[in-house]
Amino acid sequence: MLKNDRFLRACRRQVVDRTPVWFMRQAGRYQPEYRQIREKYTLMEICEHPDVCAEVTLLPVRQLGVDAAILFSDIMTPLRGMGLKVDIVENVGPVFEEPIVREEQVSALPPFDAEEAVPYVLETIRILVRELDVPLIGFAGAPFTLASYMVEGRPTRDYRKVKTFMYSEPRVWGQLMEKLAAMVARYLVQQVEAGCQAVQVFDSWVGNLTRADYETYVRPYMYPIIEAVRATGAPVIHFGVNTGHLLASMADLRPDVMGVDWRTDLDEAWRIIGPDFAVQGNLDPVAVFAPPEVLEAKVTDVLRRAGRRPGHIFNLGHGVMPQMSVSALQRVVELVHAYEVREV
Amino acid sequence: MLKNDRFLRACRRQVVDRTPVWFMRQAGRYQPEYRQIREKYTLMEICEHPDVCAEVTLLPVRQLGVDAAILFSDIMTPLRGMGLKVDIVENVGPVFEEPIVREEQVSALPPFDAEEAVPYVLETIRILVRELDVPLIGFAGAPFTLASYMVEGRPTRDYRKVKTFMYSEPRVWGQLMEKLAAMVARYLVQQVEAGCQAVQVFDSWVGNLTRADYETYVRPYMYPIIEAVRATGAPVIHFGVNTGHLLASMADLRPDVMGVDWRTDLDEAWRIIGPDFAVQGNLDPVAVFAPPEVLEAKVTDVLRRAGRRPGHIFNLGHGVMPQMSVSALQRVVELVHAYEVREV
Repeated sequence: MLKNDRFLRACRRQVVDRTPVWFMRQAGRYQPEYRQIREKYTLMEICEHPDVCAEVTLLPVRQLGVDAAILFSDIMTPLRGMGLKVDIVENVGPVFEEPIVREEQVSALPPFDAEEAVPYVLETIRILVRELDVPLIGFAGAPFTLASYMVEGRPTRDYRKVKTFMYSEPRVWGQLMEKLAAMVARYLVQQVEAGCQAVQVFDSWVGNLTRADYETYVRPYMYPIIEAVRATGAPVIHFGVNTGHLLASMADLRPDVMGVDWRTDLDEAWRIIGPDFAVQGNLDPVAVFAPPEVLEAKVTDVLRRAGRRPGHIFNLGHGVMPQMSVSALQRVVELVHAYEVREV
Repeated sequence: MLKNDRFLRACRRQVVDRTPVWFMRQAGRYQPEYRQIREKYTLMEICEHPDVCAEVTLLPVRQLGVDAAILFSDIMTPLRGMGLKVDIVENVGPVFEEPIVREEQVSALPPFDAEEAVPYVLETIRILVRELDVPLIGFAGAPFTLASYMVEGRPTRDYRKVKTFMYSEPRVWGQLMEKLAAMVARYLVQQVEAGCQAVQVFDSWVGNLTRADYETYVRPYMYPIIEAVRATGAPVIHFGVNTGHLLASMADLRPDVMGVDWRTDLDEAWRIIGPDFAVQGNLDPVAVFAPPEVLEAKVTDVLRRAGRRPGHIFNLGHGVMPQMSVSALQRVVELVHAYEVREV
């Protein structure tokens, strides 16, 4: 049983006692305990060992006092489960042995079933829901972000190959996006069935597209994903970086919660997407390194912009960074929880 | 004498016969002739040899038929001229031998005079204005973007060190920004005095700041730069990447032309900043790799969003990429010049 459901209440824009807070990438290298575990296991090995993975997922919940857990995993996990040769290379990121360049590679992508492809993920979720007294968030990368890695073969700054593929081979692009969308939808629904109470869809890099390209080449494939999860009753959070110009287009997908990076002020984000959404965000991650009084002012500014509207979930505007200190993140949680959500 | 002044007319929002077009980084590795020159000279050596530098600057004007030349240089050039040890490392970018971490380093920065620090730049400009029949654009990096390299020591994805410095040492940060602003203002004015007919101030990476941080830590130092150049009568273009959320704040600086990356649609950019500005941009650079019909549709879409208003300068939303073909960029110029700027 959940002792603390303020995260889920905020997802549904219900009244809460305190603003809920969690952090993207809240389990990671900034934690001494995590670094110790990483001496024995690679990132992918952690994901593949349910007991270790559950321990890593629980760490920040206990350590920081956040209001939600997020499954420790990687957006590449289901692709590896499908048999694609992808490694997470230290200080680089995901690297594919054979980037997608031909239609045959797209045709050869197998259908996805989490019980077969990534049984350890579902097992981790089942362990976690027994252990946790806060909600568990499942997640997946969105098709564009996954495709960007699959086509580029590795992290990119210019998205040249993936956009060129999209412009030059729209039919094959459509097939790739459809297959990935089917995988993502199935994967998220199976995470909910295994026990996740909410999910987040990371389209981390979609902000590199113009609005017209987003609506032509990406959004059509997103509708069925969001709809499939919504049909389960679990709230869906949708997040990307640099998406200020896409927020109105993304809102048309009707996620329950729109995640916003630190560039778009929360009040402005709400103005763009309208009142029918909860909003998640959006402290500039680097503010965590600021002196205490600057950090406090910035946390308060985010809360002030949320304006005590129901439906604010506090988070960083992007993931936790390895150089952060546990104590600074604890301080953020304290500041958020100390903020009066009702006029006093 | 200028044979073609449509670029300058557009900067001043005067009526033009065709939309002027030039490209950021229009001289570079995509050109076989440039690659040949680079076999003999490093990038910095080109900048330091006026005859070679003038030749490189002229190359794209002749090859592409663009309506303006931009001085071939690097935003690091004046910093090197001031004696800072910075190298442009292939496939990395600018790397500083001694990143700025202490107040003494800031205090030790010498005052700037282009005649002493970078006489070759002024000499290149003097050669070019004799040769060119289109306007010559001078340029400089803005203080935040320069400081980001100086503090981080090299290109960064997270701007952790520079923002932390800004938050933690606001007084020293202010000294650094003031010194850089004085340098940039002087450098730009001296470029105009040597013959440049317009200048562009690149605050390429300022889009990584929140609007509040931009207004607190950056904008105060920008006003004197823009004012100093405006006092010469030469138009000022101000450009950054990922600045959709900052455009209204940046417009308060009153540049003549606001450069916009490809993420903000031009009609939306104009709506944000109001009608008192010319606008430069903003084709997604990767569109240049698209099949001809897709490229044409995208060029036309940019022109259509400019809506035949006086004061549109066509450009890419960021710099030319090394993998582009000369012929594709020639095609973009042809498409822009073929577009009827008045209702027919």
